[in-house]
Amino acid sequence: MTRKKDMKLGLLLNAVGFHIGAWRHPDARPDLASKLSRYIEITRTAERGKFDLVFLADSAAMHHSHNYEVMAKMSPFYQMEPVSLLSALAPVTQHIGLVGSITTTYNEPFHIARKMATLDHVSDGRAGWNLVTSANQAEAHNFSRDAHMDHADRYGRAVEVAHIVRGLWDSWEDDALVLNKQTGQYFDLAKMHPLNHKGERFSVRGPLNVFRSPQGHPVVAQAGSSEPGKELAAETADIVFTQQLTLSDGKAFYADLKGRMAKFGRETDQMKILPGVVPFVGDSAEEAQADFLMMQDLILPEVGLALLRELLGGVDLSGYDLDGPMPELTDSNAGKGRLKNMTELAKRENLTIRQLYQHAAGSRGHWTLKGTPKMIADTLEEWIEQEAADGFVIIPPYLPGTIDRFVDKVVPELQRRGIFRQDYTGQTLREHLGLKRP
Amino acid sequence: MTRKKDMKLGLLLNAVGFHIGAWRHPDARPDLASKLSRYIEITRTAERGKFDLVFLADSAAMHHSHNYEVMAKMSPFYQMEPVSLLSALAPVTQHIGLVGSITTTYNEPFHIARKMATLDHVSDGRAGWNLVTSANQAEAHNFSRDAHMDHADRYGRAVEVAHIVRGLWDSWEDDALVLNKQTGQYFDLAKMHPLNHKGERFSVRGPLNVFRSPQGHPVVAQAGSSEPGKELAAETADIVFTQQLTLSDGKAFYADLKGRMAKFGRETDQMKILPGVVPFVGDSAEEAQADFLMMQDLILPEVGLALLRELLGGVDLSGYDLDGPMPELTDSNAGKGRLKNMTELAKRENLTIRQLYQHAAGSRGHWTLKGTPKMIADTLEEWIEQEAADGFVIIPPYLPGTIDRFVDKVVPELQRRGIFRQDYTGQTLREHLGLKRP
Repeated sequence: MTRKKDMKLGLLLNAVGFHIGAWRHPDARPDLASKLSRYIEITRTAERGKFDLVFLADSAAMHHSHNYEVMAKMSPFYQMEPVSLLSALAPVTQHIGLVGSITTTYNEPFHIARKMATLDHVSDGRAGWNLVTSANQAEAHNFSRDAHMDHADRYGRAVEVAHIVRGLWDSWEDDALVLNKQTGQYFDLAKMHPLNHKGERFSVRGPLNVFRSPQGHPVVAQAGSSEPGKELAAETADIVFTQQLTLSDGKAFYADLKGRMAKFGRETDQMKILPGVVPFVGDSAEEAQADFLMMQDLILPEVGLALLRELLGGVDLSGYDLDGPMPELTDSNAGKGRLKNMTELAKRENLTIRQLYQHAAGSRGHWTLKGTPKMIADTLEEWIEQEAADGFVIIPPYLPGTIDRFVDKVVPELQRRGIFRQDYTGQTLREHLGLKRP
Repeated sequence: MTRKKDMKLGLLLNAVGFHIGAWRHPDARPDLASKLSRYIEITRTAERGKFDLVFLADSAAMHHSHNYEVMAKMSPFYQMEPVSLLSALAPVTQHIGLVGSITTTYNEPFHIARKMATLDHVSDGRAGWNLVTSANQAEAHNFSRDAHMDHADRYGRAVEVAHIVRGLWDSWEDDALVLNKQTGQYFDLAKMHPLNHKGERFSVRGPLNVFRSPQGHPVVAQAGSSEPGKELAAETADIVFTQQLTLSDGKAFYADLKGRMAKFGRETDQMKILPGVVPFVGDSAEEAQADFLMMQDLILPEVGLALLRELLGGVDLSGYDLDGPMPELTDSNAGKGRLKNMTELAKRENLTIRQLYQHAAGSRGHWTLKGTPKMIADTLEEWIEQEAADGFVIIPPYLPGTIDRFVDKVVPELQRRGIFRQDYTGQTLREHLGLKRP
């Protein structure tokens, strides 16, 4: 009998929830959005549920593409700096992985390598870097640029940054420190390796001034779904976060990405593919649906349209009939993967603009899964068995209710089936994920 | 009767100690240099001593100016990324301020403002930014530059960065958040202020995507002693860290810097000047001196010369007779303030090169104070009374012994005299320091 696959679980972390109306939920505490205590509470809930990791998305700008008047009516993409926030969570958690996004578009690779090595040290081996390129066009204006870098440039830069960061993490061998007080030998010079990188965009000498961290390399996550994004992931990603809306799409993406690994000499089990799931868990299917509809009612139309505009890479639908069909859209610079998914979804399910923005607001383009713990566990298990996923990133629509219910009701069901750990068996995030130490 | 002035105390934090031989001390644990637990222990000792703050210096490179062979024999300027490390200390401490260096030479102002606002949130108002320009020439090679930026350029950039960062901290008024769930109003648009900065080196639109932090502005520290450094400090610094070796030099620096504040419309009590002090505390003067000499014996000559070279901005004295006098030196690009202080010290005290490197290694150019708790308290009190200092940054030569003794023996003596707090009376670092909230 084949051993059942172990599911990996991540939590997309914030303080209020990802549904656009989350902050208006009766239980929501948007006043705590800047409070560490709230992040600790939610992270500890995930750790109680034996999650592999929490994960912080990021953006280094407010979203200027929105009308300010509209923005003032929504939870405004407020984001504390991820690595600082994750570092603060390290000493008050024991096992859970701490994964943060840092954009390669506006950060120096030396800073990225150093911050992540530091997080790996302070968390005793639980750090992960979500390698992203900036999708938010407004960021350009916070970094002395007139315009957003184009997609090819962003990826060229991302590839070079990825190589430099991994190179810097190899500055010190595991046993480079001698620490002989008698002879005065602190480290072994032969085990220190400056990088001496000279590339198209960067020259970085190194070595890193932080010693080898507990995981050797912090875990590298990625989320790109474009062609160069998939190539970079196949070469360098330990985890891939992805947006998949159907089992067949999930299977195709999974096979595509894992199939690209061999040419980089990598084994397919050394990359974990984790689609996002927005869960509404009820004691009955009706209860879950009612919870979902209550959230949809909290979306103001102007806010829904603004969010849709973001997901469509700047396309403004406010001139169209909300209860009419989606118009034909052409490609654009930002968010290619999302645009494609959203327009295909609208066609396939014959959605009006209003229905699409309600869908988008409820899930931000991710897969919404409603039902009883058993129904949800059935679906997640099916995705694992069918090789559409190695696990999932849970995206709680509102907090703390939806993560509490997932941990208290769905996790025990998964454990009962033997497809999710009863307890942590390792210390580092690599160990949780079954990844080799570089 | 005039109320006695309250002394402010900071601790220059690391894991092993600042004396170049610190890691060879019998009690030293250089194997813990990357362990959060060690930083927590030392920070809690300072908090037990009611210190205002701990402070992390920084450098974004190993020191390549040293011969690698020599470097391998010294604690190699190993430095975890300060803001990540301080964030990890936030949830396990209650009162003490957390001040970290971020260089303006190789960081984007938006990132600096955001990291510090995040640290201020996660620490409930205890964050401070030590605004520095890079003195370590090796950093250039980690950031795609062929050569170190010259002094004037570094300061021009620092001034612009300081203005942008403070401007971004004013992106949101204290009461900008409305959070009205019924009307759907999240924030008050009239209380959000994009920056729209367009300067010589940067253009930054803003607003910051982190809301107003507990202190309004995190505390700003500086350490520059050059002419533009002093001007920038007089305009923008809440704290000035400084290297002063004699009471008369301290008084002159204090009067000079405070005298520059009026033209920026600032009151002199709104900047705290804190010279560094390297303490050797003994139950007798002889015991303190013996402790000091034991440390000096731990310095290997090649390491002492390498350190001296760094303090002299790259000047190599290894060709000279170690037991002969210092040669005449000319100015150089890096470390102007240090060069001046070191050469003046050698002349004044008629030191040989060996004596000077021993002095430098013991204090890294800072003021060494040896004696009983009473003797040390007398001197510190005199500096405060004579207006040479508002307080001090304690630079422990080795750890944990020298900070333990300072906290257990000197602090009670200061408290008994009524010149240092018995307990914390405020929550934020600004409150500890007596600084107004912006």
